[in-house]
Amino acid sequence: MVEKVGFIGPGIMGQPMALNLIKAGYRLWVFSRTAERAAPLIEAGATVCQTPKAVAEHADVVISMVGNTADVEQVALGPDGIAAGASTGEVYIDMSTISASGARGIAKRLGELGIHMLDAPVSGGDIGAIQGTLSIMVGGKPQVFERVKPLFEALGTNIVLVGDHGAGQIAKTCNQIVAAAHIAVTAEALLLAKAAGVDPHNVRKALLGGFAASKVLDVHGQRMLDHNFQPGFKAVLHKKDMGIALDTIHDYSLKFPLAELVARSINDTVEAGFGDLDSSAMAQVFEERNGITLAP
Amino acid sequence: MVEKVGFIGPGIMGQPMALNLIKAGYRLWVFSRTAERAAPLIEAGATVCQTPKAVAEHADVVISMVGNTADVEQVALGPDGIAAGASTGEVYIDMSTISASGARGIAKRLGELGIHMLDAPVSGGDIGAIQGTLSIMVGGKPQVFERVKPLFEALGTNIVLVGDHGAGQIAKTCNQIVAAAHIAVTAEALLLAKAAGVDPHNVRKALLGGFAASKVLDVHGQRMLDHNFQPGFKAVLHKKDMGIALDTIHDYSLKFPLAELVARSINDTVEAGFGDLDSSAMAQVFEERNGITLAP
Repeated sequence: MVEKVGFIGPGIMGQPMALNLIKAGYRLWVFSRTAERAAPLIEAGATVCQTPKAVAEHADVVISMVGNTADVEQVALGPDGIAAGASTGEVYIDMSTISASGARGIAKRLGELGIHMLDAPVSGGDIGAIQGTLSIMVGGKPQVFERVKPLFEALGTNIVLVGDHGAGQIAKTCNQIVAAAHIAVTAEALLLAKAAGVDPHNVRKALLGGFAASKVLDVHGQRMLDHNFQPGFKAVLHKKDMGIALDTIHDYSLKFPLAELVARSINDTVEAGFGDLDSSAMAQVFEERNGITLAP
Repeated sequence: MVEKVGFIGPGIMGQPMALNLIKAGYRLWVFSRTAERAAPLIEAGATVCQTPKAVAEHADVVISMVGNTADVEQVALGPDGIAAGASTGEVYIDMSTISASGARGIAKRLGELGIHMLDAPVSGGDIGAIQGTLSIMVGGKPQVFERVKPLFEALGTNIVLVGDHGAGQIAKTCNQIVAAAHIAVTAEALLLAKAAGVDPHNVRKALLGGFAASKVLDVHGQRMLDHNFQPGFKAVLHKKDMGIALDTIHDYSLKFPLAELVARSINDTVEAGFGDLDSSAMAQVFEERNGITLAP
């Protein structure tokens, strides 16, 4: 049974996730590039390490939650990385959002060293991380997934083994495309109502009962109506994820005009200076473009 | 209290709606351009009339469920129309999907004749009509809405007075834009999974638990995975509704590239010969364009 868990990257998402693991009874070893981010975890009983390698030496399972594909490669395979410290049969779970091809490549190289990898990106934002209600999309081998499933259950509520290595990242890419499109069309719909002199609050309410219902209309639609764009999930991170989406679409030579259009809308949102706001601040770009506002 | 109800246009949607009114205890007078469509209602106790005028002479409230703005004008204001037979204070509820400007114009002219109009288009398809679980988006005066609310409760479960005349149609327009965009992005996401060698069933399941969740991903996503495109809601009708959406967007001089893109996708679906299939058959257009299929 897994008891000793390593955690690399206790940031906005990672810190509450690591705390939930401690609450669930796991012993934690932590590495953070920014020392102060580990402080609340040390206070909760975690042991700080100076390298991912040292984390891997202590733990049975190591989790990372870092920035991008290059960061994950460094954490996993760098000179002070997990591969340098892990025992044969140890499990490495990367919960960052990176490219599926990157995840597959790293899994392959770790596999050759006898280390099992899972890609397990999440959806649900910082609130989901704090509440332990993340949606977790997992790629890798079923027997490895089963072994670490109790860890996932300490972090999330909708845990799906989507397929083999990279499948979690593909699901996350799909998730980000869909969420971006839902944000864009929610903004257009609420602005159409406003332009036509109809209360967009009532339109949101009416649409939530029919085939147009979505989580985004519910949550982000309300943010747009309140003009409360505190993240949530920052537009600049959604832009990063849509970059991965466009690369993936290109990798498979697909023609997806809708994904491309909403990727541009996310870019426009960041370029308009809203990068640190929730990605639903896209509505403000549409407002400016159309000379109307949803502001209360 | 309303007891005597007129029903004009017992088609695929109208017939089960009229039957639900009879089941709820209302006496019904019916007009249908196609005689056999009224037959099940006559069997259930309704009285058939030869004109909308005759329906209006018998009923306290008249409901119509017909094709387009011109049909509603004819039914309401034609020589044998409701206005020719209605008493002062009578209520006319049009539940068809027509333009908001059309609905406002007809309501104004009826109002001058002392007849109250509500626009009350629905979402939920034939299944919602049969089960009495429609979402009903209403435009008109609050006191008129309150008076006929029990009728709506016999037909639907999510009943929202959105605003004044035309507001129900604006909400329906928003609904159709959002539904079309959700269908398009669901198709792109499931096809991306398939192209990347990942089981799209698992991706649908994973996404339903997070911020990408939608009614369309649930219902229409499953139709795409089953390649079961029996309507449901016909693509040719969704095309008609997107035509209204584009006109409305044009009326208010809005720039909505996403709504325009998905309107083209619905057009492509009809032009590909899928007009009589469910509008989620849009996925088949995307499949052909990308040389992959979701077919089981």
